[in-house]
Amino acid sequence: MSWPLKALSADRFLGGKLVLHQPLKGYRAGVDPVLLAASVPARPGESLLDLGCGAGAAALCAGRRVPGLRLAGLERQDSYAELARRNALANGLEMAVYQGDLSAMPEALRQAQFDHVIANPPYFRRDASTRAPQPEREGAMGEDTPLEIWVDAAARRCKPGGFVTFIHRAERLPELMGAFAARLGSLELKPLLPRPGRESQLCLLRGRKNGRAAFRLHAGLLLHAPPAHVSDRDDYTSEASRILRGGEPLIFG
Amino acid sequence: MSWPLKALSADRFLGGKLVLHQPLKGYRAGVDPVLLAASVPARPGESLLDLGCGAGAAALCAGRRVPGLRLAGLERQDSYAELARRNALANGLEMAVYQGDLSAMPEALRQAQFDHVIANPPYFRRDASTRAPQPEREGAMGEDTPLEIWVDAAARRCKPGGFVTFIHRAERLPELMGAFAARLGSLELKPLLPRPGRESQLCLLRGRKNGRAAFRLHAGLLLHAPPAHVSDRDDYTSEASRILRGGEPLIFG
Repeated sequence: MSWPLKALSADRFLGGKLVLHQPLKGYRAGVDPVLLAASVPARPGESLLDLGCGAGAAALCAGRRVPGLRLAGLERQDSYAELARRNALANGLEMAVYQGDLSAMPEALRQAQFDHVIANPPYFRRDASTRAPQPEREGAMGEDTPLEIWVDAAARRCKPGGFVTFIHRAERLPELMGAFAARLGSLELKPLLPRPGRESQLCLLRGRKNGRAAFRLHAGLLLHAPPAHVSDRDDYTSEASRILRGGEPLIFG
Repeated sequence: MSWPLKALSADRFLGGKLVLHQPLKGYRAGVDPVLLAASVPARPGESLLDLGCGAGAAALCAGRRVPGLRLAGLERQDSYAELARRNALANGLEMAVYQGDLSAMPEALRQAQFDHVIANPPYFRRDASTRAPQPEREGAMGEDTPLEIWVDAAARRCKPGGFVTFIHRAERLPELMGAFAARLGSLELKPLLPRPGRESQLCLLRGRKNGRAAFRLHAGLLLHAPPAHVSDRDDYTSEASRILRGGEPLIFG
């Protein structure tokens, strides 16, 4: 399946250093995959797999930041896999995009392991939310694959000593941490805070395959400045802006 | 066993509103039980059980803050149970202190349930730390009861709809959250932050028996002001000081 151009928007990420075509209707990447990509402790020459890569936002943001990072993605929906390939090409990045399911990966992926595996799994439980009207959106936002399957697939595709990083809603943390703790070590949690003093809606969780270090709960990253600070522009804190616009890494510690 | 007075110090808590006798050698309560007590959402007339109550710091702080809160404590070491009784009496508070083990509670306790159950379990794993030189200190600081047993005992002694609150080292969070999630609902995590931007060493975790609300990750409570702010006095933030000195509640949300 191919996208008619009028069904797509061209969206700027990392201050314009990356431009992604995304469907006007359906799942569209916001800041979450950008934050996820920024948090990956990847070095040039290493490899990264993005599970459920959609139109490629997270993997391509990581590829733009880390020169020579070898990118791969797995996407269940053919239409998004095609977009991810197109977006990689248009941005001068190489990315191997596989169409397939978490629990039935293509053979080539099943035989590979990566230095980094990342995922931004669907946020809402199907039993607790209304179905999205567009089937493409539902595929990305609804959840019919249990979170544990995501973590299990990520841990399996990760090299010993490699890192698995997820971004997810804070309310799913008990389940996510349980799944990580059963398969990975050296867990580190980075809360993302919407406003000063407000509870976290979103967090980054990282684990290391065969890691043995104690769990670490890092100080939260504040995304938005206090409401008093109002202008026509968005109100990201300078730290968030350096990451989202400047393409700088998101440091946990 | 009785304590000779010269083996004890008289320590002021809550700005002097509570004075506790504690052994000069062995486990001594610091700010942790005070923060734990301040975080309990207790109302007058409700009941509270402190598991591993030591010399009574957490339960008695809660009793001082909430008039008419009915206090009970379980303590394995007879010498500390005796101190807790003595401290309650000296501070004009009523507290039923039971000597016994988590896994073999006195019959009177096994037949009771409480609106609030709190615990400040031993912080260090015996296999990962050196034994403390005094046996009393080891009894409180070392861990020979798995964390899961603590949470299980707390959940059993909690009324339906009641709250279980633990304070523990952040590095034990995966294990603690797993044990909570298996027995309680409506989990809420409150990180305690030593300094701005530094990772959390300590956290409060609360669950509700039969609770069904989503997990909440609250903004951290900053305990100490930035290092620039130096004086002879301690450097608690005003929020921490209101809780530790002023005896005000520690609000999660």
